[in-house]
Amino acid sequence: MLRTAASAATGSIANTLAINGDRLMQMMTDVGAIGALPNGGVRRLAFSPEDRQARQLVQSWMETAGMTVTIDAAANIIGRYEGRFPHAPALATGSHLDTVPNAGIYDGTYGVLAGVEVARTLYEQGIRPDHPIEVIVFADEERTMIGSKAMAGKASLEPNFYDHPHYEPIEMGLSFIGGNWSQLPSARRDTDGLAAFVELHVEQGPVLEAADNPMGLVTGIVGQRRYLITIDGSASHAGTTPMPMRQDALVAASEIILAVNRIGNKSGDGYGDQVATVGAMKLSPNVANTIPGRVEMTLDIRDLSNQRLDAMISELEAVMGAIATQTHTQISLKPQLRNEPVPVNSHIYNAIAQVCDQLQLPVQPLPSRASHDAQIIASITDMGMIFVPSQDGISHSETEYTTPEHCIQGANILLHTLLKLDQHYRCPEEVTALKKKSKV
Amino acid sequence: MLRTAASAATGSIANTLAINGDRLMQMMTDVGAIGALPNGGVRRLAFSPEDRQARQLVQSWMETAGMTVTIDAAANIIGRYEGRFPHAPALATGSHLDTVPNAGIYDGTYGVLAGVEVARTLYEQGIRPDHPIEVIVFADEERTMIGSKAMAGKASLEPNFYDHPHYEPIEMGLSFIGGNWSQLPSARRDTDGLAAFVELHVEQGPVLEAADNPMGLVTGIVGQRRYLITIDGSASHAGTTPMPMRQDALVAASEIILAVNRIGNKSGDGYGDQVATVGAMKLSPNVANTIPGRVEMTLDIRDLSNQRLDAMISELEAVMGAIATQTHTQISLKPQLRNEPVPVNSHIYNAIAQVCDQLQLPVQPLPSRASHDAQIIASITDMGMIFVPSQDGISHSETEYTTPEHCIQGANILLHTLLKLDQHYRCPEEVTALKKKSKV
Repeated sequence: MLRTAASAATGSIANTLAINGDRLMQMMTDVGAIGALPNGGVRRLAFSPEDRQARQLVQSWMETAGMTVTIDAAANIIGRYEGRFPHAPALATGSHLDTVPNAGIYDGTYGVLAGVEVARTLYEQGIRPDHPIEVIVFADEERTMIGSKAMAGKASLEPNFYDHPHYEPIEMGLSFIGGNWSQLPSARRDTDGLAAFVELHVEQGPVLEAADNPMGLVTGIVGQRRYLITIDGSASHAGTTPMPMRQDALVAASEIILAVNRIGNKSGDGYGDQVATVGAMKLSPNVANTIPGRVEMTLDIRDLSNQRLDAMISELEAVMGAIATQTHTQISLKPQLRNEPVPVNSHIYNAIAQVCDQLQLPVQPLPSRASHDAQIIASITDMGMIFVPSQDGISHSETEYTTPEHCIQGANILLHTLLKLDQHYRCPEEVTALKKKSKV
Repeated sequence: MLRTAASAATGSIANTLAINGDRLMQMMTDVGAIGALPNGGVRRLAFSPEDRQARQLVQSWMETAGMTVTIDAAANIIGRYEGRFPHAPALATGSHLDTVPNAGIYDGTYGVLAGVEVARTLYEQGIRPDHPIEVIVFADEERTMIGSKAMAGKASLEPNFYDHPHYEPIEMGLSFIGGNWSQLPSARRDTDGLAAFVELHVEQGPVLEAADNPMGLVTGIVGQRRYLITIDGSASHAGTTPMPMRQDALVAASEIILAVNRIGNKSGDGYGDQVATVGAMKLSPNVANTIPGRVEMTLDIRDLSNQRLDAMISELEAVMGAIATQTHTQISLKPQLRNEPVPVNSHIYNAIAQVCDQLQLPVQPLPSRASHDAQIIASITDMGMIFVPSQDGISHSETEYTTPEHCIQGANILLHTLLKLDQHYRCPEEVTALKKKSKV
């Protein structure tokens, strides 16, 4: 029996159609065994034999799920479950299989395997959506993001750009897992081919757990700005220089750090709370019996809104001016990095919210403050993200953990969201058919 | 004509007796040329050929000044100008000729040469005090303080104690400049031999210059305590960890640094203002996109009063407790170094004050916050110190400078202070004579 997604997305099917949780968790275990470390963690670096092995296993599962598998020039694996209208743009999901050097089994892998399980469920249930469903395994998310960047037409075409003393040349890496550096631009796609992209991912932060583990409704991927703050005072003898005559760069730095923390703690508009961090610091001369003459430190601020990021910097600049006067120091703020905020598509956001409501799962809106393939793909098509809770907010560690219950709930949300989006987006064939009908 | 110090210390002589300023400044220039660096600084490390050359020159000047010269086992040069009562304990002055690697010409050297000039003035004027006057050149003040420590019976007798990869063994160093390691304990002296010690030194800080260059009346040598403060928070992702869920060790450290600064800025009782400094700091992991999980930093506090040092630490511990609670961190304070405050002798302090008054020189009481041979010698006899202004408060640098006028004023204060102390201290011969007289 072949059902359309329209029938699956409405009525009783919406409440009963569900992925196979045991199968999903078994796939998680199987992929997690590839590159397993003695400490319980996983090391599956992009372009490594472990990466290749995991990709091959996932490709075989994609085929079992009724998908055709292709690998583009950027070594992205694209598993495609055809829809009723083969020329319709795809509804895509996916994530990555590569890991950081000491990872857990969830980051990236979960989004890929949940996508495969969603396709397999549709296939088994004989459900054929109007649009093709694609599950994409992006190449090398953790270091170069070459896969998603090439798909968005944002990858550098200069191979040296990707050079790193610890890693092989990018051409070699891509070739090892089925890509083709010389054809990289061919990986580019656009809205004609991709109607939407929904990424399911573990939160990698503590927000959901602290809220009693609702599902995470991602409001956007925060913009990030990084600065170098330099404070010049005067290095002098910690014994012979009386307190009122000091120009202590570290006292000024401490005032700034507390101001950064104060500004960061001002709550945003309720869904895009900012963060502000001084993470690294260098003192000169950095000895116990000398007043610090110079301090250099980093400032990292993130928020969904450029306006709020601007406001944070304006406020901080005013405070730094006052601190400089008060401490007899000179303070400068130098921009070093700027990533723009990436909003999610409101239709996708609403579709996820409605699905969670239908499935009676509590939700928590929150921004993504880490980067994901989705933020790159957002430049070429509509994008949405679903988060599931991370125990203790930990990721990139062998202690990374998400309960099977949450993994399964997340995959079901993904399943029903894709079916809902299948109704939202019109297929060109439908439009043509409607036009023909009206002409008759 | 031989005059007694009593006649020199009173009446018109007190106002007219003065050292030869040109001669003093010429000696400063001559010694400053030994070890002169191309940048205008001086490098005359203890036990170096330059040290030996300067010591030989000063010994010759001592002999010209009517002094007998001996070198003790700790390589201290003792120039002695005999008094009327040869068995009376000496009134001593002096300092050191060795320097740090990039020094100026004043630190130490000035106190030695002013002492030599004072003795020469007495000799030329035919003034013979009751007590012998000694000018002492202490060996190696800048690194081991072996000279003053041996004289006070406080030197380690374990040669490895002095080992340093950049320097020769202590036995070799002492031998090179006339000392004798195997006889080190013989350098020890006590009040039977030393009635008082007065050290004249450049301030090495900015207090006198800021007060329009009065003479410095040293109230004592501050006690110093050094601690290691460790703050344990939790290192987590600077993006994904919301502000209210952080345990930021650097935010806690900043609160502590400002508390240290606040406590240090509370003025003392008017003559022993404390200083408090965080000079060195180490963050972990010290990267821009991670909240600092651990901070280690030094705390250095100095004050004339142990009570005030205790009070500072008590106040800081209370504040740290509150900061730990507020920032969800653990904070520890571990003592690493403790040097006791050294008071000056009140008679010597008053004698210096009276001399300055007689000479119509403005004075400023202030503690010494750097260490000096005088603080070691204070453990065996009465001690006092006179400071002259340091331009820009700088020392241990080629830009160290004190005006000739201040150098000459300081030497005249030393001259008249020694004459005044000669009246204050009773000689045993005098006592015996008085007893005999009363029996007759």
